Amino acid sequence: MKTRLQVEPERIAAAARRVMGRCEELARVSSMTDGIERVYLSPEHARVNRLAAEWMRELGMSTRQDAAGNQVGRLAPAGDRDAPALLMGSHLDTVPDAGRFDGIVGVLMALEVVRLLRRVDDEGMASSPFPFALEVIAFSDEEGTRFGKALLGSSAVAGQWDPAWWDLTDADGSTLREAFREFGLDPGRIGEAARRPDQLVGYLEAHIEQGPELDRAGLSLAAVSSIASARRFQLVVEGEARHAGGTPYDMRRDALLGASEAALAVERICRAEHHIVGTVGQLEAFPGAVNVVPGEAVFSLDLRGEFDETRDHTWDRISAELDAIMGRRGLRWRSREVHSAPAVFCEPLLQDVVRAGIGGEAPTLFSRAGHDAMAIGAITGVGMLFLRNPDGISHHPDEAVSSADVAAGIRALAEAVLGLGAERR
Amino acid sequence: MKTRLQVEPERIAAAARRVMGRCEELARVSSMTDGIERVYLSPEHARVNRLAAEWMRELGMSTRQDAAGNQVGRLAPAGDRDAPALLMGSHLDTVPDAGRFDGIVGVLMALEVVRLLRRVDDEGMASSPFPFALEVIAFSDEEGTRFGKALLGSSAVAGQWDPAWWDLTDADGSTLREAFREFGLDPGRIGEAARRPDQLVGYLEAHIEQGPELDRAGLSLAAVSSIASARRFQLVVEGEARHAGGTPYDMRRDALLGASEAALAVERICRAEHHIVGTVGQLEAFPGAVNVVPGEAVFSLDLRGEFDETRDHTWDRISAELDAIMGRRGLRWRSREVHSAPAVFCEPLLQDVVRAGIGGEAPTLFSRAGHDAMAIGAITGVGMLFLRNPDGISHHPDEAVSSADVAAGIRALAEAVLGLGAERR
Repeated sequence: MKTRLQVEPERIAAAARRVMGRCEELARVSSMTDGIERVYLSPEHARVNRLAAEWMRELGMSTRQDAAGNQVGRLAPAGDRDAPALLMGSHLDTVPDAGRFDGIVGVLMALEVVRLLRRVDDEGMASSPFPFALEVIAFSDEEGTRFGKALLGSSAVAGQWDPAWWDLTDADGSTLREAFREFGLDPGRIGEAARRPDQLVGYLEAHIEQGPELDRAGLSLAAVSSIASARRFQLVVEGEARHAGGTPYDMRRDALLGASEAALAVERICRAEHHIVGTVGQLEAFPGAVNVVPGEAVFSLDLRGEFDETRDHTWDRISAELDAIMGRRGLRWRSREVHSAPAVFCEPLLQDVVRAGIGGEAPTLFSRAGHDAMAIGAITGVGMLFLRNPDGISHHPDEAVSSADVAAGIRALAEAVLGLGAERR
Repeated sequence: MKTRLQVEPERIAAAARRVMGRCEELARVSSMTDGIERVYLSPEHARVNRLAAEWMRELGMSTRQDAAGNQVGRLAPAGDRDAPALLMGSHLDTVPDAGRFDGIVGVLMALEVVRLLRRVDDEGMASSPFPFALEVIAFSDEEGTRFGKALLGSSAVAGQWDPAWWDLTDADGSTLREAFREFGLDPGRIGEAARRPDQLVGYLEAHIEQGPELDRAGLSLAAVSSIASARRFQLVVEGEARHAGGTPYDMRRDALLGASEAALAVERICRAEHHIVGTVGQLEAFPGAVNVVPGEAVFSLDLRGEFDETRDHTWDRISAELDAIMGRRGLRWRSREVHSAPAVFCEPLLQDVVRAGIGGEAPTLFSRAGHDAMAIGAITGVGMLFLRNPDGISHHPDEAVSSADVAAGIRALAEAVLGLGAERR
């Protein structure tokens, strides 16, 4: 692969150090005294938006806070202020007791990519060197910590805002509508946050992996192929509640043993599939008395896969296995699907430029966790770059990323944008 | 075996019909409008005691309600009013929405045995034909429905009353002490209900099997070898709660999968043992979120066996298997014993006379359910006779027993008493 980015390594190292320093700076903007928490439409949200806007303006970008509280910076090509934009970014909100990098590092890396690539004329005016504008976006709500609904910021940008969300309430009973007004936003103007497909050339997001694959492979970066397809089920197994003393084994129809076999079958089947994980996170037995054979068991299943087809095929295999298990045990079972989200595929061109940006034998991972790119995928092609996340620890104060990997990521992302620029020229 | 009982079959059939009729009569004494419920120290308890006393006096027995509300009838040998007694009986209290036979049939059969065996002199005075008195006892609380503690009536007779029980409360907040007074009993005199070992020659109890063994073998009656030994445990499995999306299988330490394997191991190990049942009746996963790999699972284990040794050996095997399972999965586990009761063995002589009373190839079962005989075993030898219980259904309105089996049971019990009389002469 030919390297397009002509900058001294020290400049990139300095960019990475700036990212790391800013991560620390943002970590101090927290509603917790001894940890990090920054939720949607909070005073902390307003403070990090102001910081991000300042950093955007420092690069010569025009800035605005959109109708959903997302902070946006834009650098248009000289002489074409309405050019469609390459969006880059991630989110600045956090879970409670969060780490310093999830989302944040992607916003800050995007700013460094703009810094590396922008053109500055003799009069000090910055512009995009490409036939498209460079935009950096700091999404306002990805985690869904405050209102229990994730991806609020990016859903607004994707024009997927559901009016039913206005009545969502936070832990204090405030509605999303009230929180909008208190933050200084007008719920009636939420539609203005939506971007049209023709205004965009694509979306690139850098993010920590939130998994251990790169760490275990000893690699810094990966391109992302897709964001997990997911289905969630509630399953009920019905047997017969009987006295634990008087009922011999061959007369038992023990719902909990059926559910136990089911949980182990989920593990066995998913392990045998490629890129599928199934998790039974909840399980309860009824009537739940120490001396009664359980007559009913209720459990959850969270199924994630790289492709909708393998996910659905896995569910079919699990269903068939549950038929067999429950049949052997004289039990009945039923399931109710409570959530379904298709896989979001990264655009082939954006995957290619990200892989080329990484260089060498760039690995490709699929993302089991959700990201803003899932929502943005509804209006434009998306691409993602994963950074090594030691031990896969995320949503935790121990969440980490190295400055060297951030440097490699900035270089790769800048190369990817250059690659995209070459394709678009 | 030689038959000692010299009565026409029709007399025994009539006795069985009387038992069946009285079961119906007692079933109408209920605190439920559409079902049977009769709890300790209730108006229904007083009413069935009065009925039982009437039936006892009809046989020439002297009657008393003891200090714990048990109804007792006594028929002494002529000229030896202080002779030690053979106690026969069971309980008249019920679970909520009960059947008509559990306990009740044993009290009524004992009355019929007295009717068949008693001697009536020319003046119409009844007496025991044996060197011991015949006593019928209707225990007042075996199920523990009202105060959550079972065997209150028989524990009082066994002199095992725990003063801590006075503060037990029912669902309305009444203490056992208050309920005693309201019923007309004096808590300060509870000790008077206790019988001394030298006052007793033994205790015989007829009871429905509360299990399906006889029904499946096509047999009416069985002698009981022992009443189950039991241990109960609360078990905790500890792993690591992690994100269901980002955590691949080989990094998971899923506590719920460990608990699921444990529940299945309990089943496998107990099935392979003789006369052991293990039941996991409660199981819960924590944190219990649909998208989090469970970091902890808590479950119960109820272990019952014919012998303390096999029960303990089974627990050792289960423990070793849990060590292996949890070791493989990188989990920790611990257990807390919350209940332990040794097996109560029926006295060999009483087993022999019951088996001889049944005649032929009399089967011997062990009882996995608890009975008044467990408590009475502390002061005298006990023997039990099981009656076929179709499909093993008990503690349920569908609980059944046939008149023919009751007739066979009355005959067997009468033969057993005759056999005991022959041994004692």
